[in-house]
Amino acid sequence: MAKDSKKLSIIAFSGDFDKLTAVFTLATGAAAVGYEVNIFFTFWGLDAIKKKKGRAFVGGSKLTKMFGFMMGGLKVAPNSKFNFWGIGPKIFRKLMKKNNVATLEELVEAAIALEVNMYACEMAMHVLGLKKEDFIPEVKDVLGVATFLNLSDGGQTLFI
Amino acid sequence: MAKDSKKLSIIAFSGDFDKLTAVFTLATGAAAVGYEVNIFFTFWGLDAIKKKKGRAFVGGSKLTKMFGFMMGGLKVAPNSKFNFWGIGPKIFRKLMKKNNVATLEELVEAAIALEVNMYACEMAMHVLGLKKEDFIPEVKDVLGVATFLNLSDGGQTLFI
Amino acid sequence: MAKDSKKLSIIAFSGDFDKLTAVFTLATGAAAVGYEVNIFFTFWGLDAIKKKKGRAFVGGSKLTKMFGFMMGGLKVAPNSKFNFWGIGPKIFRKLMKKNNVATLEELVEAAIALEVNMYACEMAMHVLGLKKEDFIPEVKDVLGVATFLNLSDGGQTLFI
Repeated sequence: MAKDSKKLSIIAFSGDFDKLTAVFTLATGAAAVGYEVNIFFTFWGLDAIKKKKGRAFVGGSKLTKMFGFMMGGLKVAPNSKFNFWGIGPKIFRKLMKKNNVATLEELVEAAIALEVNMYACEMAMHVLGLKKEDFIPEVKDVLGVATFLNLSDGGQTLFI
Repeated sequence: MAKDSKKLSIIAFSGDFDKLTAVFTLATGAAAVGYEVNIFFTFWGLDAIKKKKGRAFVGGSKLTKMFGFMMGGLKVAPNSKFNFWGIGPKIFRKLMKKNNVATLEELVEAAIALEVNMYACEMAMHVLGLKKEDFIPEVKDVLGVATFLNLSDGGQTLFI
Repeated sequence: MAKDSKKLSIIAFSGDFDKLTAVFTLATGAAAVGYEVNIFFTFWGLDAIKKKKGRAFVGGSKLTKMFGFMMGGLKVAPNSKFNFWGIGPKIFRKLMKKNNVATLEELVEAAIALEVNMYACEMAMHVLGLKKEDFIPEVKDVLGVATFLNLSDGGQTLFI
């Protein structure tokens, strides 16, 4: 692929609210000006594309629940980072609304509308016991690492 | 831009002391050998370029205060990561001094001297209610995501 | 280097179990299909290539010990992220075994077999007081930032 057909690819590893906001802000910002955009969801990032009543990353409490599940049912102690993200996203969302900035859900909708290519990581799905039907239908495909790197080659690639 | 005019671009998202050290170490190391270097400060990373008496990232306590503010005034419990970074930076700085490695402030000064291009993220500024005049004068411009990706295209781009 | 001789470079900054798994999954996945792969271990990531009885990142407890050492001997309080990673890796490893996915140690062995180039960051070694002989013999060289960026130029570069 030539350098002048611009491409942005993101390996979305984190399940943190702020980092997922960064993923979708970059993706939509690039797609809006004509970039080909590819997102490869892996590990905690897979939570962003899981089918749920409501989105998994809407609020810290659901994320915390997921982490709780991952940890074998142990409840995460309410301190530090996790406590932070139990409170932080609400403030972020409030600030976003107040300042007329798109919220995370709106950014995801925009990414879908702008035809951002969303892929799920095969290996992480094996580890976590997830299947293609666990994800929202907009997920284009399940890929291995090498296939994704071939897609992203020749553009800017970020690990978030 | 041709591949042989070398370029390094960094999306500085984190406000952590160690990651900001990595940002400026990479930036100055690349600029010193002739790379064009662009840094796009966003979210927590914006703290690195805020005007203050002293730099925002000098020590964990100020960072903690910022997080405290972001969290609606709640004091962060003194454990884990934040406690770690309340103590960690002091040790780092001590080790840096002892081993004649540039400290973070020195790295920032060097970045300015080496004409590293520093930009602030427009969207994050809206969310956080920050204005251009809140930043140190060396910040070159306020940019949107798409404009920064056009600047960084054709080089190595990192998300830190 | 031409764009068509594919290259993946990773700046391995994190010492977290999940992120190191991501580093070696990406590295081996790319090397297996013919990519030139370079990893630059720096800061906490250096722990991954330290000589030890057993690998440093096998289980959270050793990592925690390293952090404890870094913090001047203070024991990290058993909450949040560090507690999480004291428990998390065991579950991950169990899931990995159960689902026939390579474990981290197997991924490191595979990286060595696939001739992934592993480098240690000179500056971080100075700060942390480490020497080349502290690392496993498969570490190819000790490099500065600029030298590594020249190696990684023209490919996909990730900061993890």
